[in-house]
Amino acid sequence: MRLAIDVMGSDQGPHAIIAGSARAVVEHPSLELILFGPRQQITAELSRLPQPLAAAASRLVARDSPDSVLPGATAAWALRRGQATSMARMLRCVAQGEAVAGVSAGNTAALVALARRELGMVEGISRPAISTAIPARQGRRCYLLDLGANVDSPAHRLVDFAQMGAAMAQCVDGTAVPRVALLNVGAEATKGSVSVREADRLLREYANDSAFDYQGYAEGGDLFKGQLDVVVCDGFVGNAVLKASEGLTSMLVERVQMAFESRLSGRLASLLAKPVLKRLKQELDPVRYNGASLLGLRGIVVKSHGSAHADGFYYAIRRALQEVEHNLPARIAGRWQP
Amino acid sequence: MRLAIDVMGSDQGPHAIIAGSARAVVEHPSLELILFGPRQQITAELSRLPQPLAAAASRLVARDSPDSVLPGATAAWALRRGQATSMARMLRCVAQGEAVAGVSAGNTAALVALARRELGMVEGISRPAISTAIPARQGRRCYLLDLGANVDSPAHRLVDFAQMGAAMAQCVDGTAVPRVALLNVGAEATKGSVSVREADRLLREYANDSAFDYQGYAEGGDLFKGQLDVVVCDGFVGNAVLKASEGLTSMLVERVQMAFESRLSGRLASLLAKPVLKRLKQELDPVRYNGASLLGLRGIVVKSHGSAHADGFYYAIRRALQEVEHNLPARIAGRWQP
Repeated sequence: MRLAIDVMGSDQGPHAIIAGSARAVVEHPSLELILFGPRQQITAELSRLPQPLAAAASRLVARDSPDSVLPGATAAWALRRGQATSMARMLRCVAQGEAVAGVSAGNTAALVALARRELGMVEGISRPAISTAIPARQGRRCYLLDLGANVDSPAHRLVDFAQMGAAMAQCVDGTAVPRVALLNVGAEATKGSVSVREADRLLREYANDSAFDYQGYAEGGDLFKGQLDVVVCDGFVGNAVLKASEGLTSMLVERVQMAFESRLSGRLASLLAKPVLKRLKQELDPVRYNGASLLGLRGIVVKSHGSAHADGFYYAIRRALQEVEHNLPARIAGRWQP
Repeated sequence: MRLAIDVMGSDQGPHAIIAGSARAVVEHPSLELILFGPRQQITAELSRLPQPLAAAASRLVARDSPDSVLPGATAAWALRRGQATSMARMLRCVAQGEAVAGVSAGNTAALVALARRELGMVEGISRPAISTAIPARQGRRCYLLDLGANVDSPAHRLVDFAQMGAAMAQCVDGTAVPRVALLNVGAEATKGSVSVREADRLLREYANDSAFDYQGYAEGGDLFKGQLDVVVCDGFVGNAVLKASEGLTSMLVERVQMAFESRLSGRLASLLAKPVLKRLKQELDPVRYNGASLLGLRGIVVKSHGSAHADGFYYAIRRALQEVEHNLPARIAGRWQP
C-alpha cells in the first residue's frame, strides 16, 4: 500500500513530518510512503533518523518538489500558481492512482482548493467538507463538520454534510445507524438561522429513506455528551467551535497543572499530575492528534494539524489508512442520492 | 439601591433564586430586592431561609406575579401573552425607574424580546446583544458577543457589538483602550463570510475615531489567550462557541477527576483534587457563575444561567450592580455615533 505525503507546510518543519512518516512505515510493514518536498532536505532528514525508524527508511521514497505552498497562501494563489508545489504534486499522485491516499499538514485553504481540482468531487457534492472526531463522554466520539471549508453554507450543503458525516461514522467507526444532529442556538423549531431551519426540514423529509438517525437540533454542549455520532454546521461555526475547544483545552490543562503544582510539592505534582495531564491533552486535542478528513472528494485526503509533531502526523497517516481500508469515498458516493 | 428580580424560570426553582437574592442583600447592606413571582411560594421560601440570610429578609420584598414564562416559550408568545408574567413585570419595574436593574434566570428568547419592548433600545441600536466575560489566560477575561440574541447578523450589527463590548470592558473592568477583534475562520483578509469581511472594513474605517483598539480578525482559540478584551461574532457562532466551551469544561473537569481518582486513593484524591477542580469549574463556567448582560437596552438587565444555583444567581446580581455603578447604558449611548 502506498500513500503520498506532502513534507512541506508544517509549523514544525519537514523534520516532524518525516519522523511521523517513519513511525508509520515501522508500524505498518506493508506501507510505502512517497514524500513530496525538496529532495536534499528529505534526504538529510532521512539520514538523521534514529533506530528503529532508520531501518524502515527504504519505504520512504523522496520525490523532489522544490516549490511549496506558503502558510499564508490563498486558495486563489494555489489554483493559479500552485501546480508545481509539493502539495499539488502529492495530490496528483493520488489522483493518478499511484498512491491510495494523501496527507498534508499545509495550508488548509490551498489543500481544499487543490484537492478539489486534482481529485474531483463525488457526484452531487460541490465542495469538500472538513471533518474531525471530537472526543466525547464515555470514550465516544462525535464527527463535527464542516470545519471551515465552506462558509455561509446553504441548507442543501448542510444536508450533504449530514450524509458524509454519517458515512464516515458508519465506515470508520462501524456505527450501524449513526445519530446525526444539526447544530443550532436552541432546540426549538422557531430558533436559528434560515438555512439551518430549512436544512432541518430537508433532513426530516429525508429521514425515512436515510441510513442515519436524524435527531433534530443540537446545541454546542451536546458535542461532548457522547449521545451523537455526527454534528453538522456551517464551516464558520464549526471552525470557531473547534478552535475555541482547542484553545480552551490547552488553557484548562495548563491551569490544572498550575493548580496542582501550587498545592503539591514539585516532585509529587510531576509524579501524579503530569502523566494524567499529558494523556488528557492527547485525548482532547482532536485535530492535532488525529488529523481532519476532507470529505466528498473522489479520493482520500487527510489534513494534519499545522502544529502537529511527529506523533500527530503519524495519527493523521493512520486515519488515512482507516479510510482506505473502508473505502470511504465509495461509501460517500454510494450513499449519496441527489 | 433597588433591583428587580424574576423569581421564576430557573431550572433550580425559586429556591435557588431566593437564596442567591438573600446572599446579595446580606453582602450589600444598602441593597433592596423586589421579588416577582407567586407570593405564596416566595413567602414560603423566605420563611425557610437559614441565618444569617434570614436576618436580611426584610430587604427582600415579594411582589405577587402568579404567571410565569415557561422554559420552552418563544419570543412571539412572550410578546403576545407574556404581559402579566413575573419576567415582564420585573422588566416594567426597571422601565418605570422603581428599580435600577433587573435579573432573571428565565427563558432567554422571552427575556430579550420583553426587555426590548419594556425598556426600549439605545438610539442607533436595533436589538439587544448578549455578552459574557470568558475566562482567559493570566487571569484576564474576554467579552464575547453576541451569544444568541441575533442570528445572521449583518456587518453593521457586528460593528454595534464591537462598540457595546468595548463600552462594557471599559466601564466594568476599567480597560482604558479595549482590544477588540472580529471572530473569523482565519487571519487572512480573503477568508470568512461576506458580513464578517464587510464588518472588518467598517471597523478599519472607524478605527481612527473609536475609543477602542481594533485588532482585526481573531480565531476561536484567541478567546482564551488573554490578549483580547472583546471578541465579536454573530449570535449563532457565539452561542455555539459558548455552549461548546461549557460542555467541554464540564467533560474535562470530570475526566481530570476520574483520572486522579483512578491513580490516587479516594481520600487523597478528594483532599488534593477536589478543591482544585471545584475552583477551576467556577472560574471556567462563565455564564453559570457570572451571568450574561443584555446590551443596547435603555436599562440594565442581566440573564443568569438557567441552571445556576444560589451562588450563580448571586454573581448575576453582583454583575448587575457593577453595571449600575458604572452606568453602562449611558456609556453605550454616549459612545454610540451612528
